[in-house]
Amino acid sequence: MLLHTIYLVAIVAEAMSGAIMGMRRDMDLFGICLIGTVTALGGGTIRDVLLGHYPLSWIANPEYLLFTIGAAIVTAVVARVLHHARTVFLVVDGLGLVAFTVIGCNVAMSSGMAPGIVVVAGLITGIFGGVLRDVLCNEIPWVLRRELYATVSLLTGGLYVGLLSLKIDINIASLVAIGAGFLFRLLAIRFHWRLPSFNGATIRGLD
Amino acid sequence: MLLHTIYLVAIVAEAMSGAIMGMRRDMDLFGICLIGTVTALGGGTIRDVLLGHYPLSWIANPEYLLFTIGAAIVTAVVARVLHHARTVFLVVDGLGLVAFTVIGCNVAMSSGMAPGIVVVAGLITGIFGGVLRDVLCNEIPWVLRRELYATVSLLTGGLYVGLLSLKIDINIASLVAIGAGFLFRLLAIRFHWRLPSFNGATIRGLD
Amino acid sequence: MLLHTIYLVAIVAEAMSGAIMGMRRDMDLFGICLIGTVTALGGGTIRDVLLGHYPLSWIANPEYLLFTIGAAIVTAVVARVLHHARTVFLVVDGLGLVAFTVIGCNVAMSSGMAPGIVVVAGLITGIFGGVLRDVLCNEIPWVLRRELYATVSLLTGGLYVGLLSLKIDINIASLVAIGAGFLFRLLAIRFHWRLPSFNGATIRGLD
Repeated sequence: MLLHTIYLVAIVAEAMSGAIMGMRRDMDLFGICLIGTVTALGGGTIRDVLLGHYPLSWIANPEYLLFTIGAAIVTAVVARVLHHARTVFLVVDGLGLVAFTVIGCNVAMSSGMAPGIVVVAGLITGIFGGVLRDVLCNEIPWVLRRELYATVSLLTGGLYVGLLSLKIDINIASLVAIGAGFLFRLLAIRFHWRLPSFNGATIRGLD
Repeated sequence: MLLHTIYLVAIVAEAMSGAIMGMRRDMDLFGICLIGTVTALGGGTIRDVLLGHYPLSWIANPEYLLFTIGAAIVTAVVARVLHHARTVFLVVDGLGLVAFTVIGCNVAMSSGMAPGIVVVAGLITGIFGGVLRDVLCNEIPWVLRRELYATVSLLTGGLYVGLLSLKIDINIASLVAIGAGFLFRLLAIRFHWRLPSFNGATIRGLD
Repeated sequence: MLLHTIYLVAIVAEAMSGAIMGMRRDMDLFGICLIGTVTALGGGTIRDVLLGHYPLSWIANPEYLLFTIGAAIVTAVVARVLHHARTVFLVVDGLGLVAFTVIGCNVAMSSGMAPGIVVVAGLITGIFGGVLRDVLCNEIPWVLRRELYATVSLLTGGLYVGLLSLKIDINIASLVAIGAGFLFRLLAIRFHWRLPSFNGATIRGLD
């Protein structure tokens, strides 16, 4: 199935992005493999723990761990070359974001959740791997600060749930939501779209 | 019911406190909403995951998310004015702490936990939202370092469990525990009560 | 049973190591007790939540909390003296690492997990208490960066699962795995064995 193939590509891409961040924090080979795995599988893990949806996907399919560990090791070996692949990364990461979102929505729907929770489950699947990566790297999570990233996940999930509520075939709804979300993410990257932020300095005294 | 009303006021207050911290870390609107929601609902979420108590409260009642997101957005808009409301915040936050504690104890008792675990469940509900907020903001959790805050939760929970073990009516026990805990928190703020800490410098060599 | 005794010694040692780190971060007495408890029981807690293995060990056995809190308080009081016990700590911590690993493997096997997941469950039990400790202390987790520590856990778990797959008696397999893993850890400390790491500076441009 197409969605499953995209999923495997996405966890490889996310594991590589985690591994790169681990290398920049001077982690050893174990740390690089762990941070890559957490980045790739952490969002789905948090979703399943919050929904009480057992077994977790990587426990039911331990081969996912081989994908993420293998991707992290390859990244560590060829990182100098990856230097030139920044754009490819951003594109594959964007595809992963929307694929994770749709998969997360599917898991929540199969557990009988309300539509709002389905969208939230997609969001958690899409962004919490990166949140865990940043926490382990001792950074404020990037997704909380900059760019249209979480917003892409929310709109993708909302579109997907909306299409399904109109009784549109699930394969068509998946393709439309993934296509529209992916396009939106590419446009957000290209044109540096951002959500508003607020000047924290004005409230410096309030803590 | 009174406890439920206090709970809703408390999650709004906690969401506002999280939103303020997110603004001071230069987060965008999504980040502010997420950090507000995690601050408000994170303690109860961790409690339920640790107890295996499903569904989580905000999954069973998705409208809680509307309260916390709404509170975060309002905070972002009116933050300059909130500048003058520091004392109100501290008071509402103290009320939230003891209400969260009693609610957490109730959840653990309904799951048939031992009295010590009931008090711990109240503590987790009371403080772990703030712990998650601080971790996401890349700070050592404030509750681990300063003031009588966790201690207020422990004493509130201990008093509540103690009163119930004396067969006192649950409504009376709730009111007494909340009232006494709240008073204790206000006194701790007013008189800067603190637990002892230890001079880390003396053990600098031991790591 | 021997393994249970080693476990109790290990949670006391881990609680003391967490308490020391909390003191060095200027935490108060509550923070020191909490960080000690999280360090000692956090790995098993994460393992059980990921496996869906309820109730958690410290909820089924609340007396474990008394061990960890007591160890943290004693540490706070006698920390100046512990200054001279660095080597004892490292040795007991190494014994705890391999004991946690074997216990984690046993829990996963009793839940019918695949052999690879059994080894991962041992690893999580062995290292994630320390990961949580470091995240709460606002540090990049030490285990991701330096020394053969996680590797010891992986080899101990792999050896244990391998011996059991050869139909070797479980008591003998436990003793052999713990003995070999402990020896390996002591050698790694003595000779400063490390995994390769990678020069993050070469990929500075890639983020």
